[in-house]
Amino acid sequence: MKVELVNTGSELMLGRVLNTHQQWLCRRLADLGHVVTRQVAVADSGNEIQQAVREALSRADLVITTGGLGPTSDDLTRELIAELLGKKLIENKDVLAHIKNYFAKSNRLRPAKTDVETFVPEGAIVFLNQNGTAPGLAMKIGDGRWEMEVGEQITPSAISHLPSAISKWLVMLPGPPRELRPMFDDSIVPLLKRELAAEIFVCRTLRTSGIGESRVQESVEADLQPLVKRGLEIGYCARPGAVDVRLTASGTGAEKIVRDGEDIVQKTLGANIYGLDDEEIEQVVVRLLTGQKKTLALAESCTGGNIAHRVTNVPGASVVFPGGVVSYANDAKEKFLGVHSETLKQHGAVNETVAREMALGAREKFGADFAIAVTGIAGPGGGTPDKPVGTVFIALASSAGVEVKKFLNPWDRETFKQVTAQQALEMLRTKLISS
Amino acid sequence: MKVELVNTGSELMLGRVLNTHQQWLCRRLADLGHVVTRQVAVADSGNEIQQAVREALSRADLVITTGGLGPTSDDLTRELIAELLGKKLIENKDVLAHIKNYFAKSNRLRPAKTDVETFVPEGAIVFLNQNGTAPGLAMKIGDGRWEMEVGEQITPSAISHLPSAISKWLVMLPGPPRELRPMFDDSIVPLLKRELAAEIFVCRTLRTSGIGESRVQESVEADLQPLVKRGLEIGYCARPGAVDVRLTASGTGAEKIVRDGEDIVQKTLGANIYGLDDEEIEQVVVRLLTGQKKTLALAESCTGGNIAHRVTNVPGASVVFPGGVVSYANDAKEKFLGVHSETLKQHGAVNETVAREMALGAREKFGADFAIAVTGIAGPGGGTPDKPVGTVFIALASSAGVEVKKFLNPWDRETFKQVTAQQALEMLRTKLISS
Repeated sequence: MKVELVNTGSELMLGRVLNTHQQWLCRRLADLGHVVTRQVAVADSGNEIQQAVREALSRADLVITTGGLGPTSDDLTRELIAELLGKKLIENKDVLAHIKNYFAKSNRLRPAKTDVETFVPEGAIVFLNQNGTAPGLAMKIGDGRWEMEVGEQITPSAISHLPSAISKWLVMLPGPPRELRPMFDDSIVPLLKRELAAEIFVCRTLRTSGIGESRVQESVEADLQPLVKRGLEIGYCARPGAVDVRLTASGTGAEKIVRDGEDIVQKTLGANIYGLDDEEIEQVVVRLLTGQKKTLALAESCTGGNIAHRVTNVPGASVVFPGGVVSYANDAKEKFLGVHSETLKQHGAVNETVAREMALGAREKFGADFAIAVTGIAGPGGGTPDKPVGTVFIALASSAGVEVKKFLNPWDRETFKQVTAQQALEMLRTKLISS
Repeated sequence: MKVELVNTGSELMLGRVLNTHQQWLCRRLADLGHVVTRQVAVADSGNEIQQAVREALSRADLVITTGGLGPTSDDLTRELIAELLGKKLIENKDVLAHIKNYFAKSNRLRPAKTDVETFVPEGAIVFLNQNGTAPGLAMKIGDGRWEMEVGEQITPSAISHLPSAISKWLVMLPGPPRELRPMFDDSIVPLLKRELAAEIFVCRTLRTSGIGESRVQESVEADLQPLVKRGLEIGYCARPGAVDVRLTASGTGAEKIVRDGEDIVQKTLGANIYGLDDEEIEQVVVRLLTGQKKTLALAESCTGGNIAHRVTNVPGASVVFPGGVVSYANDAKEKFLGVHSETLKQHGAVNETVAREMALGAREKFGADFAIAVTGIAGPGGGTPDKPVGTVFIALASSAGVEVKKFLNPWDRETFKQVTAQQALEMLRTKLISS
């Protein structure tokens, strides 16, 4: 089966907005057994959208568009697709009632602009938007032309009563992620499960750190060759401070092939594997801390709160994370963490001793089992020949004492913060699994 | 002129990695006057890559591919494009020397895998990778077939001596962003400036908060109509806690048309406009604080360090930001910020009084001019009928006292953190521009 995504939006083509739909939808669809074969983004213009959708429909069994369903003048997808397919736009009473209610709930007047959202292509299945106004739409195509259902305006629970599809589907989703995502999960997933035959597809990602991409491949590829002959596909992906190894297979036996591959990679790279699939290192660390009933405090200088932000992105983090101090100024290092002013005077803020004192101070003041401290030079300014931009000291305090490591991460400011946070959390992970 | 991007990588199609190249390259190219007309992503497979590149070349004057130039077995772009164009792959001595040097500098053995990176399509221009091993490549096409330059292996400074292009270019860039981005800026921009006639293209984005997408359009569209007749294009984009208004025009007079449009939007929505173009609210706030020689301290509970992380993403933040406390636990709110235990006992952690005490404590302890404090319920757990998930109190302390606002942001955990941080920084921005 072929699946294509068409992301519409001039803001995408002008680079004003990051396209997060591709990753999110591709991931969800792969998990359902529908690997996306092509993704296209085009501007909000008649020609571009119609051409992209026409091409996608000629190749794929399922085409999903995102964006262009809203109330403003550059929201053209609904109209253009209706025109492409020769369908009239018809006012839908359920959508109108939904939108009226949406604004009434928050005591706001309904803008007249939202009228356009109540018009849907003749025969389309309508998905009311639980987090906005523009409905999602689905249409079924048979034998190269559209097959209409009579009066289809259904709720998610009614999808199981639809007649079987003949061949292909076009699904239109609204652009804002917090509208698109719940609509996909609540309404489109049941539709796809009912209408499209999923293929067996198994994917496992092993996430490593502390080793380069070439070395990762060299250490596993020979052992994986017999599985490749049985259908295993291997992918490598280098990210800041990490390399992913991805094992996939399709069809009968896929599960066993991927599991055997995973065993081989685990045996060879085990110590470097910090997580599986989408698991971020902060999730691993929060999981390990929770399991061991331990707590973590933070003392961040150059990472500026990035580690705390990542840790607190994990639901349930409050159980293991009492808090942290972002001690950007030297004064703050002294006052909140008890770093000695002598140490700062003598060595400056970026060195092993300051990192050590920050970690000890944070551990004690928060009453935590572990404390991580980072001090370094994120750049672009502040580097010296001795301590160039990218220099960073990471300390980990525990009941066993303090361990300090020095790294050089000479990247741009945001990459520096990401890589440093990854290294700091990796130090803790290593400690947690060895204790 | 038509420009297309082809992003290769099975990790993209499986949704395992976010495609950041689209936004970055589209933005850079638009700024150069080359608006991208289509972007396509395909898996690392022979058919898909060759078909996508062939189609793109049939339509566009400039095609840029990303990914698939590395050393691992799924890096296929270079080979597949050479095959598509009937070019041999030839070993390039400069690339070999560069890669040897790359590993020698860090005292590492060169993995044998990197051999493949030294082979480049016959006639390609080679761009040595200053941040990695795989070179970038550029090839010129004339009249439907490839025109080769003899022995082209040039440095960025030599690009100005190239003969003029006949018609279209294919550029291949490595996948890792920290390799791709400097290579694009240092080597591809000079090539494009020399070889392709840029069009006049002007784009201005006005970023608003505190007002919905429909209302934004309703308040400006009538006044903008005369400019639309003169060629102005208007786009609206809703983001978490914000709506962007984008004004673009091309050709002669574009600058004046966009400037006139900007004046109209500023007059109508001025109070809601927090920034222009790519400016994030944290950049605006750091700029205003720097100009007014004021400092900011933070006391974050439910945002978990996100505000500090955003503020410290701005180069030069250290001048205005002494630091912050991430006080997740009640103990930390007492110990580090001086919140009264009575207050916490009586009201719990999420209420106006705690927010107020946190802000006052942070302002005093960091000796800052302003302090922002946030306390709320990020979810998914922790909500009550009285204080549902999404409830948040934001306090802003200054020499004039403390102001507290209550918001309801009932989104997922990460969106909650983003929107709340945006609202907190917007409160400070409003204060800074009114003082």
